[in-house]
Amino acid sequence: MSSHESFLSELRALLSEGAVSSAAEDLNFYSVDQGPVVDLQLPLAVIWPTEVSDVQAVLRLAGKHGVSVVSRGAGTGVSGGAHATRNSVILSLERMNRILEIHPEDEIAVVQPGVINAELNEAVKPYGLMYAPDPASYRLSTLGGNIATNAGGLRCAKYGVTRDSVLALDVVLADGSLIHTGHRTFKGVAGYDLTGLFVGSEGTLGIVVGATLRLKYLPVSSRTLAIFFEDFRTAAAGVLAVGKARVQPAIMELLDGASMQDIDNRMHSRLRSRGGALLLIQTDGFAAQAEAEAVAAAVAPLGGTLYQEDPEEAHRLLELRRNSRGMDADLETRVGEDVAVPRSRLVDYIAATELLAARHSVNVRVVAHAGDGNLHPTFWIQDEDREGINRLNAALDESVELALAMGGTITGEHGIGQFKLRWLGQEQSLEVRQLQSRLKLLFDPEQLLNPGKAI
Amino acid sequence: MSSHESFLSELRALLSEGAVSSAAEDLNFYSVDQGPVVDLQLPLAVIWPTEVSDVQAVLRLAGKHGVSVVSRGAGTGVSGGAHATRNSVILSLERMNRILEIHPEDEIAVVQPGVINAELNEAVKPYGLMYAPDPASYRLSTLGGNIATNAGGLRCAKYGVTRDSVLALDVVLADGSLIHTGHRTFKGVAGYDLTGLFVGSEGTLGIVVGATLRLKYLPVSSRTLAIFFEDFRTAAAGVLAVGKARVQPAIMELLDGASMQDIDNRMHSRLRSRGGALLLIQTDGFAAQAEAEAVAAAVAPLGGTLYQEDPEEAHRLLELRRNSRGMDADLETRVGEDVAVPRSRLVDYIAATELLAARHSVNVRVVAHAGDGNLHPTFWIQDEDREGINRLNAALDESVELALAMGGTITGEHGIGQFKLRWLGQEQSLEVRQLQSRLKLLFDPEQLLNPGKAI
Repeated sequence: MSSHESFLSELRALLSEGAVSSAAEDLNFYSVDQGPVVDLQLPLAVIWPTEVSDVQAVLRLAGKHGVSVVSRGAGTGVSGGAHATRNSVILSLERMNRILEIHPEDEIAVVQPGVINAELNEAVKPYGLMYAPDPASYRLSTLGGNIATNAGGLRCAKYGVTRDSVLALDVVLADGSLIHTGHRTFKGVAGYDLTGLFVGSEGTLGIVVGATLRLKYLPVSSRTLAIFFEDFRTAAAGVLAVGKARVQPAIMELLDGASMQDIDNRMHSRLRSRGGALLLIQTDGFAAQAEAEAVAAAVAPLGGTLYQEDPEEAHRLLELRRNSRGMDADLETRVGEDVAVPRSRLVDYIAATELLAARHSVNVRVVAHAGDGNLHPTFWIQDEDREGINRLNAALDESVELALAMGGTITGEHGIGQFKLRWLGQEQSLEVRQLQSRLKLLFDPEQLLNPGKAI
Repeated sequence: MSSHESFLSELRALLSEGAVSSAAEDLNFYSVDQGPVVDLQLPLAVIWPTEVSDVQAVLRLAGKHGVSVVSRGAGTGVSGGAHATRNSVILSLERMNRILEIHPEDEIAVVQPGVINAELNEAVKPYGLMYAPDPASYRLSTLGGNIATNAGGLRCAKYGVTRDSVLALDVVLADGSLIHTGHRTFKGVAGYDLTGLFVGSEGTLGIVVGATLRLKYLPVSSRTLAIFFEDFRTAAAGVLAVGKARVQPAIMELLDGASMQDIDNRMHSRLRSRGGALLLIQTDGFAAQAEAEAVAAAVAPLGGTLYQEDPEEAHRLLELRRNSRGMDADLETRVGEDVAVPRSRLVDYIAATELLAARHSVNVRVVAHAGDGNLHPTFWIQDEDREGINRLNAALDESVELALAMGGTITGEHGIGQFKLRWLGQEQSLEVRQLQSRLKLLFDPEQLLNPGKAI
């Protein structure tokens, strides 16, 4: 029996019927997430644990056999963080999908990692509460995956990113031991912030098997403004004008003309005919109307056309925005970026990006979480040929360098995964990268947890 | 020349005139912060660096001589985190007190660690911005100290704790090297969250010599409600009623009758005559008035007496609250605690605390950041005798155990320092504590950075 066969047979003996598959269709389906594929590998098996003890058993066995473990939620990540690596198993946490507790007065929920973001929101809605972080994938993505990537979303500028809503974690470490970090209270400063260290670590330091999440009040009302401007420059000026009015919108999204056109093509909407750039703003809470009026007054001098949308149309517009990258995985011919820049540089960034795209003869369209300077330019080419892909990659490299030169980051919310490793050395110093490698070794001396990702 | 003498003479040679003192009055003054003193030690010297390179030089020299380095801001901490330890120098960062940059459109400030919290707030006010974390010591405490302890304050439930406002750090590591962590953007997920790991680590992992901070909008208006209830139980029910109304106040403070009496005695106010417990609520922003009305409606059925305070009286009341622990250091005969419990347990916690205080024949008064379940019971005895101090300590131990039994934490915002180490093992498992010790060793192999603190 080969060493892989003996690993698989021991694995099957450990877990219940149906918890392990090495069927070709499973290995194929689970080999990649939605990120660009650089180095396609098939896993040895796909494992669906249902208990914490299953995860512990898998990690102990993997350690014994020197097999890597790539954990995965719904596979909606776009950086290749859940791509299979050589000699690995995929540990899919999708069946650990129970909401264990909702405590409305404490404003917390305790969940297993496979719970879908939208399902938690549905469950807490009757109590007038919400789970705030809302990645565009919120209908599909799991809370465990959101935690692994420290997912952002549309509401971050007001309500914070995933990290801000995670109070405590249950984590299985590389040796199979289980630890509990953090606290059930909003505040707590005992010891080091291990919870924050695990959030965003992309399954490289431990496997999150449970989370205590902070809930926030579901806004009592909201108002949505769609403001169409002649060009992106004016729309970005609108973002700064809203700030000067001291309004913190729940959502403040910017779409350029090309993104509006793309949405129109796919969704049969009619955005592009209404202007060259769209600023989509939602205010919420007791001041929704007052803030919407303050926004309208602040942007009025910029000459856009403002529509206060009824709730149905507002919902439709936001869903269009959420679908703006499409639901397909990135391809070699189309890659979405995720840089962030200080807010005042939004205009400069877009202008320079349009220039560099033209220089490399590639297409670009941009949407931005403008409230926090997080931009998603999508670069694409028409034909799949090596020379075109080279041009696309050159444009990607330059767009990332541009963000860094403006004091930005190479990833605002999607994570490094596998695909963005090539740029990490441009953002982080050698000393910081070495420190992170030593941290990784401290948690995972055999480097079996999602190797070659995140750092 | 003794080894200490040679260390001191090398130190003086490295730094500029006046940057080092071993005068008895300095050694005495800087030997302790405001926390209870368990093991009084005098430092070998007090050092006031003015440049990052000074800090680097001090750490290198300290490493060479095996001298510990205790960093310190304004010394307003109340857990003994800045107490001198054996064979240590105090590194006071109070002269590194420049605001290096304010960028209103990006809503960030870059500061040296010795900048006073209130000074940053004054400096950003003209731009309609604020630095949100507001520990009661905000007029005195430094941002570096706030970062070292992940300080909380009154506005946390709405605006977050210090960690939520720290985007990037410059940190001198134990070997004297300088690293930069984090990003200038609101969001960023490249690599591990080293920034979060340093925040709250009480100077045990590195010395923060610079910070990029997120600013938030200064509220356009605010309303302050003082609601006097017959007893604490009813006031705590008011806290939950406000939550059910989906109002997130900026400030929601609870004071028991004994705290009101104490404030009256010291500040010549007349709070106690108006009721047995005080719920002090401030709403802010565009909805300040609407939320104040919603609060009033929510608590009306509970029968308290509600005053909407004019701004001057509101400010006075909040300052009274901030001074509620007094400005004096803790004594062996009077110790303030800092537990946090899930919000729904506030009432139970207070009731049980009053019982245990009575059982141990000690006095207790309680104030709470009710919005986030963070309680500050102060226990005290009249006479300083060994038997009384034993009773006080027994009461402290029990009050901490009580918080833990309710799913709480031993420290919501003050930090572990030196004084709370005795309880840390009750909150954190052996595995977590060992993991933290290994992290400490990774950053500081010789254990010279603030040894015997925080973990």
